[in-house]
Amino acid sequence: MIDTKPAAPNALPTPYLLFLGDVTETGFAKTAFALRDWAPDSCTGEYVLPGGKVSTGLQPMTPAQAASQGARSLLIGVASPGGIIPASWYPALFDALDAGLDIVNGLHTKLSSVPKLHSAAQDHGRRLIELRRPPEGIPSGTGTRRGGKRLLTVGTDCAIGKKYTALSLAQAMSRRGMLVDFRATGQTGIMIAGSGIPVDAVVSDFISGAAETLSPDAPDEHWDVIEGQGTLVHPAFAAVSMGLLHGSQPDVFVICHEPGRKHLVGYPDFPTPTIEEIIDLTVRLGRYTNPAIRCAGVAMNTSALSEDAAYRLLAAESNRLGLAVADPVRGGQAFESLVSACISD
Amino acid sequence: MIDTKPAAPNALPTPYLLFLGDVTETGFAKTAFALRDWAPDSCTGEYVLPGGKVSTGLQPMTPAQAASQGARSLLIGVASPGGIIPASWYPALFDALDAGLDIVNGLHTKLSSVPKLHSAAQDHGRRLIELRRPPEGIPSGTGTRRGGKRLLTVGTDCAIGKKYTALSLAQAMSRRGMLVDFRATGQTGIMIAGSGIPVDAVVSDFISGAAETLSPDAPDEHWDVIEGQGTLVHPAFAAVSMGLLHGSQPDVFVICHEPGRKHLVGYPDFPTPTIEEIIDLTVRLGRYTNPAIRCAGVAMNTSALSEDAAYRLLAAESNRLGLAVADPVRGGQAFESLVSACISD
Repeated sequence: MIDTKPAAPNALPTPYLLFLGDVTETGFAKTAFALRDWAPDSCTGEYVLPGGKVSTGLQPMTPAQAASQGARSLLIGVASPGGIIPASWYPALFDALDAGLDIVNGLHTKLSSVPKLHSAAQDHGRRLIELRRPPEGIPSGTGTRRGGKRLLTVGTDCAIGKKYTALSLAQAMSRRGMLVDFRATGQTGIMIAGSGIPVDAVVSDFISGAAETLSPDAPDEHWDVIEGQGTLVHPAFAAVSMGLLHGSQPDVFVICHEPGRKHLVGYPDFPTPTIEEIIDLTVRLGRYTNPAIRCAGVAMNTSALSEDAAYRLLAAESNRLGLAVADPVRGGQAFESLVSACISD
Repeated sequence: MIDTKPAAPNALPTPYLLFLGDVTETGFAKTAFALRDWAPDSCTGEYVLPGGKVSTGLQPMTPAQAASQGARSLLIGVASPGGIIPASWYPALFDALDAGLDIVNGLHTKLSSVPKLHSAAQDHGRRLIELRRPPEGIPSGTGTRRGGKRLLTVGTDCAIGKKYTALSLAQAMSRRGMLVDFRATGQTGIMIAGSGIPVDAVVSDFISGAAETLSPDAPDEHWDVIEGQGTLVHPAFAAVSMGLLHGSQPDVFVICHEPGRKHLVGYPDFPTPTIEEIIDLTVRLGRYTNPAIRCAGVAMNTSALSEDAAYRLLAAESNRLGLAVADPVRGGQAFESLVSACISD
């Protein structure tokens, strides 16, 4: 079980009632599915509106029913076409406040776009929590060495498995009886962990400081497994990756890669870097805040391959790179070897 | 003359009346001095309170007098002990609004900390301009190549001459009849240029996009000379340097360095990098958005040396590195060689 002790001021009111609105395509519900998969104990049930066609399979219930079962918030677990909060959702949001639930929102569109919701929240003494709002009081980075060990997932692109890999590694380490915390840096990860800092919403002068705050000083044997963001070669987001790397001062990093991906998602003029390139850059830049930084191995997304082809590729890459290479989804011995490579000196 | 055409939405209401408050130490007035030196045409005069001991030498005048001479804003040109806005300054701020001036503030403390100032501004139809507020509507970076040429000043530390060097180079290039714009990224630079984007206040996901916005597509022969920020090895601020580098897609960069500085200012555990290290990192990382990036030379701060020792050092370093090396403050032939090295292919 992943330890969900709050790491940062942004502790969320769990457990959640997952709100699926009236979305009709599963692609819009990735957040809800991730919560069901990674934080089932944080989910009381789901609430789907008439017309909605997507379900997580969790127990369906209204806000009032969820509240009576101990739920503390309604979490918007779906995106919406156009990114706005549709009027069809409004009654559910007000019902949630009536029932005594806070509302947790990770959409770009703020809850303040819903007329009268803010005053309703005030009347009921409830919180409207915006996960994309920059947190307050984040200090600048210091570069000071902190106690404990840290692992960072590092990507050759965005949307390549850094969160999933971090969650898998943390879970595996926890199963081995280790003291470990998953540290979330994105909205979904924060919802899963129940706390964290959305680093892409932090002002750039404070990104390293945010990363330092996210994985504070800890006992020597404790591990922070930190969700990476972006990639160091990204024309739009490399700054986030850089600040997160410095502030996390990781002892160990795991590369996340998808074989066959030719260019950065959304940036067709930018070829995906090689694994070696990112290993080299990460060591080069990461050394400034942790001279001992090393690459433990590679997590590959082999979902496009057959099982045979996948295992052949993982073995071949492991040979080629001289590192542990595994697919966290497929698990197995290769993944256990990757875990071992992370935690051994 | 440096072209002060607004480059970005943040165009400031020039000319300014420089407000020096009642500060007694020149160290607090660096902004005012920089404006006097670099943007004299943007300064109508100065306003010093009783008890103040620092003067820029500009014509002393009250807000009403400044307004009658065409000033459009009172600019707070000093820092204050503790960083707050002292009550002794309040009457001057209200007088400025009365006289028809906007107020430009670059302090961390916002003008909203001054009781009733905001409503006074509204009553007079005046603006309170916070230079440390993140600008709105900045897009994500695209990595798309833009027309025109770009030069970025890059540091081996913070507070090492990047702004001064950029201003000097832009001024020299302008004197040579070139089409050039100085692009400001910090509060003082923005005040000097009359526009710009305070990149350290931009949310980290948008830093590259801010840099792209700051130096937009331009004619082939046009030069943007961009004020660098931070240094790529800084434990707190490297993310800013990274995003600015990517988004600026510079063709040319000039290293700014101070011989004898042993560690990063404020970070005694972090040694200053070598010039070669920063050249290497800048080329390595900058290539992703401009494969043609090259180092034109080095701007050194030799203020601690005698004139003889300085010129000997500049010549020796130029020999050693195989690059143009000059002190922009000392100017002279060495500096002209540096300018030539920037603009030649």
